[in-house]
Amino acid sequence: MNSENAKDSAEHKKDKHNHKLIEQIEKLTAEKDEIFAKLQRLSADYMNYQKRSARQISEAIAYEKESVIKSLLPVLDNFEHSVNGAEKVEDAESIRKAVKMIYDQFLAILKNHEVEQINAVGGKFDPAYHEAMMNRKEPDKEDFTVLDEFQKGYRLGEKVLRPARVIVNKLPASEAESAQEQNPPQQSDTDNPENED
Amino acid sequence: MNSENAKDSAEHKKDKHNHKLIEQIEKLTAEKDEIFAKLQRLSADYMNYQKRSARQISEAIAYEKESVIKSLLPVLDNFEHSVNGAEKVEDAESIRKAVKMIYDQFLAILKNHEVEQINAVGGKFDPAYHEAMMNRKEPDKEDFTVLDEFQKGYRLGEKVLRPARVIVNKLPASEAESAQEQNPPQQSDTDNPENED
Repeated sequence: MNSENAKDSAEHKKDKHNHKLIEQIEKLTAEKDEIFAKLQRLSADYMNYQKRSARQISEAIAYEKESVIKSLLPVLDNFEHSVNGAEKVEDAESIRKAVKMIYDQFLAILKNHEVEQINAVGGKFDPAYHEAMMNRKEPDKEDFTVLDEFQKGYRLGEKVLRPARVIVNKLPASEAESAQEQNPPQQSDTDNPENED
Repeated sequence: MNSENAKDSAEHKKDKHNHKLIEQIEKLTAEKDEIFAKLQRLSADYMNYQKRSARQISEAIAYEKESVIKSLLPVLDNFEHSVNGAEKVEDAESIRKAVKMIYDQFLAILKNHEVEQINAVGGKFDPAYHEAMMNRKEPDKEDFTVLDEFQKGYRLGEKVLRPARVIVNKLPASEAESAQEQNPPQQSDTDNPENED
């Protein structure tokens, strides 16, 4: 009788344990389903985001192009007036002035887009902003001074769009030393922000 | 003895069942962990993609701006030559020719960016491409013909950057009819792709 009672009690415990295990299985299944649903939602979100992102990039590009070109329309207008209007003007000086004004307007608009000409002549040669096309020798100027410019350089913010193509002063070693004494090194005129005081 | 055997057998079955439940719990736990790990990886990927995407958009904008402006540097070069070179030229006709060439170059570069002038004068008024600044009455021309242009219009691909500002022919009803008979309606000259044959 005692042994039988003990067996019943053990069996009861097992039933209880069993029940707990089933509860645990139900809980785990629910949790797993929940995480899986989350995974599916996130996966769908991610795919949508990728599609949207590709569209956003092409829209941003189109918008930027449009905005830069729109900003230049006043230059085109003045160009057109000067080309058409100039037919009546016989005075070279007036046409010249008009062209200079359009050029300045063009540069001012580009400046609004953070585009600026690179200053070169008179400053020290800086390979980050200048491309040396040839050397010349001017003993009264410091070695490596930019003497002249073939082509203007341009930068967009910190980035060089095109270096200035320049002629650089190159003195023989002995003259370079004496030029150095006569003309103490001057600050580069390249508007290089890193070189600024 | 028999009842005891039966009990032992039931107990054995319960043990077996129990064992299966534990196996199922282990399996479910492993599956849940796996899905959770996937969710975490996807979530990290998504976050990285969002960061990268924001960077890609700003890079694409910068690249587009750079590319449009770079393409215009030859115009600026010729401008500069004409402004500087023109100092020596006293002949208005030569300067005029130079300006016309730069203008044409400018328009050609814009055409590479799909930017074109909207043709207006002589065609039929089209509110999608033209903005009527005033009306005039020219009885020998068809009603709603664009007579003159105050300001050039521009479009980028299909999109109007700026409509052409125009003067439109507006005839009284009676004259409009007779003009219609004398001058059969002509195809609009707006380069509107939807109007093209």
